Amino acid sequence: MKAEIISIGTELLLGEIVDTNTPYLADQLALLGIDLYYSSAVGDNYQRLLDVFQRAWRRSDIIICTGGLGPTQDDLTRETIAGLVGEEPVVDAELKEELVRFFTQRGATMTQNNTKQATLIPSSVALENPRGTAPGWWVEKDGHLIIAMPGPPSEMHFMWTNQVLPRLQKKTETVIVSRTLKTFNVGESAAEAQITHLVTSTNPTLATYAKPDGVYLRIAAKAANKEEANKLISVMERDVRDIVGQYIWGVDNDSWETVIADLLNKRKLSLAVADSFSGGLLAHALSSESVAEQCFRGGLVAKSKESREALGISPSLLEEGDHGKLAMEMAAMVRRILCADIGIGIEGYIETTESAAVDHIFIAVESEKAGYHTVQNHSRRHPQMKARSGYYALADLRTLLLTQ
Amino acid sequence: MKAEIISIGTELLLGEIVDTNTPYLADQLALLGIDLYYSSAVGDNYQRLLDVFQRAWRRSDIIICTGGLGPTQDDLTRETIAGLVGEEPVVDAELKEELVRFFTQRGATMTQNNTKQATLIPSSVALENPRGTAPGWWVEKDGHLIIAMPGPPSEMHFMWTNQVLPRLQKKTETVIVSRTLKTFNVGESAAEAQITHLVTSTNPTLATYAKPDGVYLRIAAKAANKEEANKLISVMERDVRDIVGQYIWGVDNDSWETVIADLLNKRKLSLAVADSFSGGLLAHALSSESVAEQCFRGGLVAKSKESREALGISPSLLEEGDHGKLAMEMAAMVRRILCADIGIGIEGYIETTESAAVDHIFIAVESEKAGYHTVQNHSRRHPQMKARSGYYALADLRTLLLTQ
Repeated sequence: MKAEIISIGTELLLGEIVDTNTPYLADQLALLGIDLYYSSAVGDNYQRLLDVFQRAWRRSDIIICTGGLGPTQDDLTRETIAGLVGEEPVVDAELKEELVRFFTQRGATMTQNNTKQATLIPSSVALENPRGTAPGWWVEKDGHLIIAMPGPPSEMHFMWTNQVLPRLQKKTETVIVSRTLKTFNVGESAAEAQITHLVTSTNPTLATYAKPDGVYLRIAAKAANKEEANKLISVMERDVRDIVGQYIWGVDNDSWETVIADLLNKRKLSLAVADSFSGGLLAHALSSESVAEQCFRGGLVAKSKESREALGISPSLLEEGDHGKLAMEMAAMVRRILCADIGIGIEGYIETTESAAVDHIFIAVESEKAGYHTVQNHSRRHPQMKARSGYYALADLRTLLLTQ
Repeated sequence: MKAEIISIGTELLLGEIVDTNTPYLADQLALLGIDLYYSSAVGDNYQRLLDVFQRAWRRSDIIICTGGLGPTQDDLTRETIAGLVGEEPVVDAELKEELVRFFTQRGATMTQNNTKQATLIPSSVALENPRGTAPGWWVEKDGHLIIAMPGPPSEMHFMWTNQVLPRLQKKTETVIVSRTLKTFNVGESAAEAQITHLVTSTNPTLATYAKPDGVYLRIAAKAANKEEANKLISVMERDVRDIVGQYIWGVDNDSWETVIADLLNKRKLSLAVADSFSGGLLAHALSSESVAEQCFRGGLVAKSKESREALGISPSLLEEGDHGKLAMEMAAMVRRILCADIGIGIEGYIETTESAAVDHIFIAVESEKAGYHTVQNHSRRHPQMKARSGYYALADLRTLLLTQ
């Protein structure tokens, strides 16, 4: 099956917004094993929209479009699809009632133009949109499938997951299940090469994705039902774990912050970080996760000589230029002043050579209570080492928590 | 003139990357007054590429494409353009020499496949690419213009600005100059309504863009030369400043961080921030700007009761729940412990009502030396108030620095 994505909205052609719907859907289609050969963006103009839809109709089996479902005159997706398949949109009494209820609940009156959000054509089924006012359309005609969803990503993601995906799976009589194994540092290991032979497998498939917090290995299986798909996944997961198991830190929705918070909370340990090298990114990540509320004491950014001296770091150490020692001092200091059990210190410098910039990062983990007193040096040539330094720190901490 | 954008690369259709080139180019074209009706993404397949280029050729005057200029077999942009205009690509001796030099300088040997990056067709002119190996193509034929640029955004932006834009302006015999006035809080002022009549002006144009750090007002003028364009801009800028002048904090490339650093450095004042509410985002922003190195002492995130008490905040204040007072205490504390002249404290809470979440933010600016001792309360219903809280703080500080 061949699919095509059409993003609708003049704002896309004025450069006002970045289209994140297309990569989201493209990824989902890849997972479903549906080929995507074309994606395009088109403005709010009936003739141009119809033109693009007609071409898509000729060359693709599935047309997935986002945007243009709103109440204004500019929103022309329903009209275009109706024109394409030669049907007339009519107001659906039930959809209209729901819409009126939506407005009433919010203490507002529904204006006339909103009625168009309650229209259907004979070939369309409404796709519920609990996150907004515009329902989507699922249109099946002459062996073609058209799926129309709202443009706002949160509405679209929700509709895709809860309305479209189950229908697609039912239609194709296959279920697709995936499991993502999240690794760190595997890219720099010899082990990575050992799993490449698995990448050629067709069912389940194994795909790798380089992300800021590590390399994700996504296993996806197609089967007649969930149980069978899960069985297929389990077999490959075992193979993958046999080879790169030691690099896996999480699965599916795990984040570094939740994984670390979980380990700390279980051990009733608290953490504070001095991450001047990343300018506080690690503290930001840890304080955004509500799960870390219990164990995260706070963070400190102090790069200047003045502030470091004020914090009690000795001037001689600052002059010495021993980044490992400095990281240790900062870890111990932040642990004390923020009253935490464990302190992390991240220091580093960037060495610029003729051909590249190499980041030298020093990560200290210090704890009187837990007996940690380690400094690791991570030197890498990577454009995002500042952002990644926090993950190196959490990876070091995880190893300590699990092994000591 | 009608333009069309084609993004090339199978990775775009697998959802592996988000296409930020299209919005960048769409914005630039809007600024140039060139209409963009279509944009599309297509994979690395010769027949499909040719198909998309042929359609673009029929309906558009200018085709701008990105990607597919690399050395591998998958990179087919040059071949496609050559096929489209019916010309044969040949290796250009000069380009080849440059390429060999590029590799030699990096201590590498140029492999044979790289030679294709040195090809031209009779209708094409090479566009220099000092940030990478693949030069772009500028192709003029039969009244059509094709511009091919590399996919990596940093290479593309550089080539657009330095190679494409000057040629486009020469070709259209017009110069487009723009000036962006950056405002804060104007969205909540009555003044904003007063500039809406200027938005209908056609030359210069005035466009507004809502950004996290404020509302940008971009004035753009077309004229035969820079001087005339600048004159047109100056007239409108005066009108705009007359109405919303007090909300303007910067122009063009100014960022909040550079503007504040500049004000502080001139006054020889240093700053430290306790921004627990944003989880250290303000400290991160300030420590990323090298211009702030001199004046920024550091930041502190401390949300937990334990860490705040350890820092000397009295338990009774923490229990009281007076966020303004707490912000002031945090400001004074961080100023002292990081040895700065001015301390900023950001505290707040989110009030969730039935219909929405309202963020209540309290920003304290405290300085013994400068005599600041203020707390401002900013309450807003906005999804990004955590990220925006730092800008509120810098806006408050800017007002103090300019008026006291």
